[in-house]
Amino acid sequence: MSDSKTTAQSLTPAAIHSAYTLIKPYIHRTPLLTNQTLNAIASTPQTPSSLAGTEFENQAPANPTFRFFFKCENYQRIGAFKARGGFHALLRLIAERGRDEVQRRGVVTHSSGNHAQALALAASTLNIPAYIVMPRISTPSKIEGTKSYGAEVIFSGSTSTEREALVAEVQARTDAILVPPYDDFNIICGQGTTGLELQEQYLDAVLENPQLSVHLHQGALEERHLDAVITPIGGGGLNSGVATFFSDKPTKVFGAEPSFEGADDCRRGLQAGERVLAVKTLTIADGLRTPVGVLNWEVISNQDKVAGVFSVTETQIKDAMRLVLERMKVVVEPSAVVGLAVCLFNEDFRRLVEKEAPQGWDVGVVFSGGNTTVEAIGKLFG
Amino acid sequence: MSDSKTTAQSLTPAAIHSAYTLIKPYIHRTPLLTNQTLNAIASTPQTPSSLAGTEFENQAPANPTFRFFFKCENYQRIGAFKARGGFHALLRLIAERGRDEVQRRGVVTHSSGNHAQALALAASTLNIPAYIVMPRISTPSKIEGTKSYGAEVIFSGSTSTEREALVAEVQARTDAILVPPYDDFNIICGQGTTGLELQEQYLDAVLENPQLSVHLHQGALEERHLDAVITPIGGGGLNSGVATFFSDKPTKVFGAEPSFEGADDCRRGLQAGERVLAVKTLTIADGLRTPVGVLNWEVISNQDKVAGVFSVTETQIKDAMRLVLERMKVVVEPSAVVGLAVCLFNEDFRRLVEKEAPQGWDVGVVFSGGNTTVEAIGKLFG
Repeated sequence: MSDSKTTAQSLTPAAIHSAYTLIKPYIHRTPLLTNQTLNAIASTPQTPSSLAGTEFENQAPANPTFRFFFKCENYQRIGAFKARGGFHALLRLIAERGRDEVQRRGVVTHSSGNHAQALALAASTLNIPAYIVMPRISTPSKIEGTKSYGAEVIFSGSTSTEREALVAEVQARTDAILVPPYDDFNIICGQGTTGLELQEQYLDAVLENPQLSVHLHQGALEERHLDAVITPIGGGGLNSGVATFFSDKPTKVFGAEPSFEGADDCRRGLQAGERVLAVKTLTIADGLRTPVGVLNWEVISNQDKVAGVFSVTETQIKDAMRLVLERMKVVVEPSAVVGLAVCLFNEDFRRLVEKEAPQGWDVGVVFSGGNTTVEAIGKLFG
Repeated sequence: MSDSKTTAQSLTPAAIHSAYTLIKPYIHRTPLLTNQTLNAIASTPQTPSSLAGTEFENQAPANPTFRFFFKCENYQRIGAFKARGGFHALLRLIAERGRDEVQRRGVVTHSSGNHAQALALAASTLNIPAYIVMPRISTPSKIEGTKSYGAEVIFSGSTSTEREALVAEVQARTDAILVPPYDDFNIICGQGTTGLELQEQYLDAVLENPQLSVHLHQGALEERHLDAVITPIGGGGLNSGVATFFSDKPTKVFGAEPSFEGADDCRRGLQAGERVLAVKTLTIADGLRTPVGVLNWEVISNQDKVAGVFSVTETQIKDAMRLVLERMKVVVEPSAVVGLAVCLFNEDFRRLVEKEAPQGWDVGVVFSGGNTTVEAIGKLFG
């Protein structure tokens, strides 16, 4: 624990800037979108009937004001923010150990999802062998995607024991260096660059069009800042990285999780004062089924860095996803919209915004990825 | 006929420029997107098995090269290019007849789809009463959308006789001025502004990044032009407008239609040398179920303006839609992708591109709209 505490102290805004310098040539500067319809919906109180059956039944719905700035990592390479961490981890390995050693040994990871493709893309781009342990039951398109970048895919069973045994086997055979999906200093710094771009693009946007902001006064450049940023939390790589970037700025960072079958492990852990070690959930937000990592927890449980974590139901995630697809015409995966769902539907969060800011908040909402299929959309809404 | 021929002669690039000056403050300059994955797929020959059962069975598949520039009118106001024509028709009426007369009389149209919402939005923005005759069986979301702009919705039966009778009734009651959905000089000029922006944005894009183009040579600014533009054809407002804009430029304009149940009335008409007057089809491209209009036909049947019209099957439309949603993460309606489907799957068109341009073509593809629902996507692909 003291080890991760020490490492967490090195997670500074400067570390995010340094990561950005390294990965910038390899990643997309994804667009920052605004949407008046979603602003209007979120800035309207929920109906009493939509609160029926919740703890807020028969209470007056909150009346917050939102101006959203959507950071669209669904348009990132491989369709998710994970490309940032993948490239950063590899570029840092090369910088620290030399290209020869990393090329000789290669890298290994286990992932059924976006991290697998991110590491495979980064490895093929940088000409490094990659070994990806994937559960045999992963969706065929993700296996194909990973293979298409030239990575060697090794199939495992679905338990973490089986997975780790296979990773150890690959390491024994190849001496490959492990690149974890989220619980890792360099991965966290890579994902944190999402916050850096979000901040820059927000400034550009409100300077060009002050109407986009709830703060109509024209303050000095360095005084314009997002009031809040909210990101999904699965393993916590994205949230802890973004919180690191904003840790010396007035912007508050929040996390969002699904509540289904205990997927809100981070929120529950914060309540209990102790990290939840295991989660078993089949939430539709399939990128958020993992418990938060050790180093990630060090950041997220620090109230100076993360101001709160809120959860939403499966129906609320679907309702948010419908709005993004139908109104914004943007394809996102369910995991991507939990932050927006919190803003739209979580009365605790909405009351907090109303109370803290009568004039409202400018909120950066990170859409983490867009890797879904038309069949999956059909299954969710058919 | 001689009337429409005379009117067609006034459809000039200057008329499109003049329309653009008028509507620019009211419409979005929609993004122009590129996508390497779709370029790569379209620039790979189709597999022999995908040609089985077609007239191209057992022939070598064409091997054209494409660089696409997607003009995303799904991000236009009301979610479709129709906002351009709606605003232009109304602004022109005001300019010609005076605001007082137009405000007193109001405007009327019949439409079950995007034109209804476009005219309702333009009318509410310009403070003009609008009466929209919609079939009783229109989708509730489109009825709600139209009403939400403050238009008076009048329900009719589904036949054109019933519809026209009701329009006449509204006109008798209110003296409202008819704004047709596509067969109209001002509507065509408004839709043609899509081509004007496409051309400007293409220049910006390839000047910033010459790699986007098949033409790697750095010619003078005025020599850089799209090789071709392809748009869907329903009533033909968009295609005839875009063709008008490019009529004095080297860019070739093409049209695309669904072939299902004879929805390719324009293509068949061109083949027969005579406009097809009626169409009865339930193609999934529901915006393209109407026959091409009289004035639109004057433009489209002029080979100096439109170089050809090609059709695609329902499966090909669905396959193109899947690629746009899953690879580009962009929500489009089925009608929007028929142009892309022609580029991807129509062997006649692909052979033409291969033959005309060994080095390939830069092709502007107009995505006409994005008004669909998650349920409709589920029904198409579930």
